[in-house]
Amino acid sequence: MRILGIDCGTERTGYGVIESDGREHRLIAAGVIRSTAAAPLEVRLLEISRRLREVIRDCQPRAVAVEQVFHAANTKTALKLAHVRGVALLAAAEAGLEVGEYSPLEIKTSVVGYGRAEKSQVQLMVGSLLGLECPIASQDASDAVAAAICHATRAARTRLEACL
Amino acid sequence: MRILGIDCGTERTGYGVIESDGREHRLIAAGVIRSTAAAPLEVRLLEISRRLREVIRDCQPRAVAVEQVFHAANTKTALKLAHVRGVALLAAAEAGLEVGEYSPLEIKTSVVGYGRAEKSQVQLMVGSLLGLECPIASQDASDAVAAAICHATRAARTRLEACL
Repeated sequence: MRILGIDCGTERTGYGVIESDGREHRLIAAGVIRSTAAAPLEVRLLEISRRLREVIRDCQPRAVAVEQVFHAANTKTALKLAHVRGVALLAAAEAGLEVGEYSPLEIKTSVVGYGRAEKSQVQLMVGSLLGLECPIASQDASDAVAAAICHATRAARTRLEACL
Repeated sequence: MRILGIDCGTERTGYGVIESDGREHRLIAAGVIRSTAAAPLEVRLLEISRRLREVIRDCQPRAVAVEQVFHAANTKTALKLAHVRGVALLAAAEAGLEVGEYSPLEIKTSVVGYGRAEKSQVQLMVGSLLGLECPIASQDASDAVAAAICHATRAARTRLEACL
């Protein structure tokens, strides 16, 4: 199953596409969509939307995984982030893709086995799970792949449970 | 100048298009995009996006006016609303439209002359400013038109100030 993970951000949106059977994961593509902080929000949303559609067209994922948004840290930041998330979910819906939303705890647990893992631990484990020689350089892209891995393992577990 | 006002909501998104010189306003179209509360957010965003694009294509506005989002009342609701707002701003940017964002206070002041006006007062004044026999039935659509009127009067004032 091919899955696109998206780590939404107003200045940097990470993405990562993996091919996975829920046990073995292979990296297809990963990168970061950067947008100028000085540009109006709608211009940034347009750029993020265009790039995500390109990734979906080029990589043909079947599902999209995104992190849930929380207001805990900073409400203003969370509100801006939710605009980007809206655009990301729209790109998924336009392409008819299945959408999975996961909490940071669920994503970290599925990758590191520990919900309070540091960002750098997630980065290392993502690299290891993908069998890469070096971890993915960008933490945003790595976080996006982590969400995709979370979706892959969940989907595999759901398939297994359906057999019982 | 033709302006589209949007009143974002996850279950009901109001829209209203006016033609205005900043002093006289004429209603072109107004309505509400309803989305099933039971549907996943991405499906609702897709429907809202499709309908807004249709309105933009059919009515050919030059600018879009939206209300600023605040977290004061309910953060969870504000976060959902921000997803819809992201999709609305994207539709505006895709069509290359000018975007104006206004606080509820600015919108109410421009329509009623009083920032703490009740919703029903706004509805009455919007109807009156447009020269309608009856106010617009939907408060969501009326609020959207109010945002458009706010943008029209602001734009006219900015043009005047530029002459000084």
